[in-house]
Amino acid sequence: MRHKILVFLPAFIFSASLFSQTMPADSLMIRRIFDQALTRGNAYQNLEKLCLEAPARLSASPNSLKAVDITLQMLQETGADSVYLQKVMVPNWVRGDHESGYIYTGEKVIPVKVLALGGSVGTGKKGIRAQVIEVRSIDELSKLPIEKTRGKIIFFNRALDKTIINTFQSYGGCADQRLYGANEAAKKEAIGVLVRSLTTLTDDHPHTGVMIYKEQQKLPAAAISTRDADLLSASLKEDPSLQLHLTLSCQTLGEALSYNVIGEIKGSVHPDSVIVIGGHLDSWDNSQGAHDDGAGCMHSIEVLYLLKALDYRPRYTIRCVLFMNEENGAKGADEYARVAEKSGQKHLAAIESDRGGFAPRGFTVENSGLGVRCYQKMQQWQPLFTPYMVHVFDYGGSGVDVSRLKSQGCALLGFIPDPQRYFDYHHADTDNFENVNQRELELGCATIAALVYLIDRHGL
Amino acid sequence: MRHKILVFLPAFIFSASLFSQTMPADSLMIRRIFDQALTRGNAYQNLEKLCLEAPARLSASPNSLKAVDITLQMLQETGADSVYLQKVMVPNWVRGDHESGYIYTGEKVIPVKVLALGGSVGTGKKGIRAQVIEVRSIDELSKLPIEKTRGKIIFFNRALDKTIINTFQSYGGCADQRLYGANEAAKKEAIGVLVRSLTTLTDDHPHTGVMIYKEQQKLPAAAISTRDADLLSASLKEDPSLQLHLTLSCQTLGEALSYNVIGEIKGSVHPDSVIVIGGHLDSWDNSQGAHDDGAGCMHSIEVLYLLKALDYRPRYTIRCVLFMNEENGAKGADEYARVAEKSGQKHLAAIESDRGGFAPRGFTVENSGLGVRCYQKMQQWQPLFTPYMVHVFDYGGSGVDVSRLKSQGCALLGFIPDPQRYFDYHHADTDNFENVNQRELELGCATIAALVYLIDRHGL
Repeated sequence: MRHKILVFLPAFIFSASLFSQTMPADSLMIRRIFDQALTRGNAYQNLEKLCLEAPARLSASPNSLKAVDITLQMLQETGADSVYLQKVMVPNWVRGDHESGYIYTGEKVIPVKVLALGGSVGTGKKGIRAQVIEVRSIDELSKLPIEKTRGKIIFFNRALDKTIINTFQSYGGCADQRLYGANEAAKKEAIGVLVRSLTTLTDDHPHTGVMIYKEQQKLPAAAISTRDADLLSASLKEDPSLQLHLTLSCQTLGEALSYNVIGEIKGSVHPDSVIVIGGHLDSWDNSQGAHDDGAGCMHSIEVLYLLKALDYRPRYTIRCVLFMNEENGAKGADEYARVAEKSGQKHLAAIESDRGGFAPRGFTVENSGLGVRCYQKMQQWQPLFTPYMVHVFDYGGSGVDVSRLKSQGCALLGFIPDPQRYFDYHHADTDNFENVNQRELELGCATIAALVYLIDRHGL
Repeated sequence: MRHKILVFLPAFIFSASLFSQTMPADSLMIRRIFDQALTRGNAYQNLEKLCLEAPARLSASPNSLKAVDITLQMLQETGADSVYLQKVMVPNWVRGDHESGYIYTGEKVIPVKVLALGGSVGTGKKGIRAQVIEVRSIDELSKLPIEKTRGKIIFFNRALDKTIINTFQSYGGCADQRLYGANEAAKKEAIGVLVRSLTTLTDDHPHTGVMIYKEQQKLPAAAISTRDADLLSASLKEDPSLQLHLTLSCQTLGEALSYNVIGEIKGSVHPDSVIVIGGHLDSWDNSQGAHDDGAGCMHSIEVLYLLKALDYRPRYTIRCVLFMNEENGAKGADEYARVAEKSGQKHLAAIESDRGGFAPRGFTVENSGLGVRCYQKMQQWQPLFTPYMVHVFDYGGSGVDVSRLKSQGCALLGFIPDPQRYFDYHHADTDNFENVNQRELELGCATIAALVYLIDRHGL
């Protein structure tokens, strides 16, 4: 017992002394990062430019290519050592020029706000008209006799659980309706699908998002605003035989060439080992994509800018990757991971910012590979973030794009901004620049840059 | 040494066992509070009613009395044991119907947005016109020779320090210009004062706020928007002899009768010992006063509602106090403290919410009286708040209203919502209901109710 104590004591002393040596330097560097971001940052002006000049950046759209040009130039202006594009083929889904929904009761016609889900087939010009079967879940649908669902429109109306503090978890608890609803309805010989919008608000804005076909029979599928979902549900209680007329003009036009946009600062000690920070450049087609994920792109570009502006020479290669096509395919992430694997590139850590531009709360890291070491280090680093009101350093998810690097065994992290307002805007026509706060965005940039700095300086 | 250990051990064991007994029950009660606030809360609807039916609730205004009626009814609807008014005399300052500012250079006339500071005298109908002397601080002004300032308009142009994470601290670092600028300018025989708006934004909205006269000579004083402050400063560099024409129609009409609005649930064990939770019912006259301090009033009313709705029988008396006149006199707080002192009422703790309706981050407690014990208890309770992303439990300020209770020796606390957006709206015409987020407001209500519950259940 006594021996054991003697063995461990020096290790403790060494580690405490290392802490006291590095912490003041780290603390000062992090203060400089925040000062730079808050007084001489570019993220907010950059976001304005991206949102106004290339809104609605859905993969393969003209604006998505304009966004490639714009962010390429922004990365060059950071002073990055190299900036380049990576080719990737992406799906070309278009909404078309017409979408409408009408409830027909015996007495009246009530228009409702609908928005095709990404990837949905259209209805044809005349649309589809049928009775509506409301369900709360795929499970509830699966138990209905096929006589009840055949030829009908299935209305998935499960609302987000407002009692869950992390809204991403509430979203996760309802997303299966949107992702697989049409697929399950096809098995039940229905002819179309409506899904309650995945938002914590009750309002008039439908929220789109990707859906996935597995069955041969592809049903047209649309989101309906939460207020109209409540209206439809109430109308069905009064008149279960009401009909819905749904018209969607969307279609998939095959594939198109697009790009991931990449910029990096070469590592001075480990140039072949990479710390990635990234967001996705594509957005849905019905907004400016300000929080989703213009903010994440600007966070990522700004990390390079902040480190360069402060004359920091990284030990590892710091790479900003703006992934194309996160929203409806993740082809950009697949291609980035494929190229990295093929060329034998090593990754130390990859941080994704795809949860909006709100005030920073912390990071989650996946419990795999170097993520375990990263988690332990973050517990030590936590006091460095307390002055900036950043407290969350937990195990948890990273993001759709960086999680493709899992086989590398690197640490996979997700940046966690405050989650309360994200689903107000997510995939709705309100996700615009005016709803991003400058200080919140800038504090996010600095928080991510601070963690990148710590990982670079101390390794994992 | 060994003896000492034996003495302390039982205390430790008792306290650990107490912890394990109470924590699960506390944890469950706090979960119930959050569930109730997030799914069956009234705060957001109540705030909408207050903002739309009684905006611009400046003390002594007709709307401030309407707000008294509205919140009296809201308190009755919580099921509180008693609801009553407390008379208080308040100042009656009115803005009047005209405010304007014009820069006269040799070549052109440029209009600027001005807003009289609360308590300012007017300029007379013709206004005042004079050269402008720009300074960054009262200190800088004090060093100027009187020949330079005599007959001039003094322009205080110190901006908030954006690098300070807690925006209330940046505000505190600039507020002296607004509070005492006119006073100091009078000593220098100037004839008027302009103050750069105290906001972290650069925009076109002037922010008002109270100012205080000590000198006999009362100078008219107005806020100017940050964008116009930058314009005026740039114009002065080009043409130091430019003139400013300022017209303000404001005046003080003496005093008027008003009220604090109070509701309480009687304590079952210590009915004569009170836990106060409060905000201020008055607002400035140029907005709906949604964050300042409609939110704090709704937080406070909702605490009573949540505890009643969950059938919680408090041990101490839980009292919601909506203080009148925080903005320009704090006469309501003075009167509440005076009556409490005179009638021998004991206070255990007083929590103020006057920092907006943003996502909750925690509490600060003053390092005085029972505040020291409260701080220690909060360190133990902290894990109960982690699931709700509430992390800050520090020493710090409480608020203008509850700090009047300091002589009671009770714990004085301030509720801390996220501070990043507060000064975007504070005292500007944008402080309206549309800029309050429902979930953020509701989470604030639950967080305060949870702390009130813990103080009530465990004492201090």
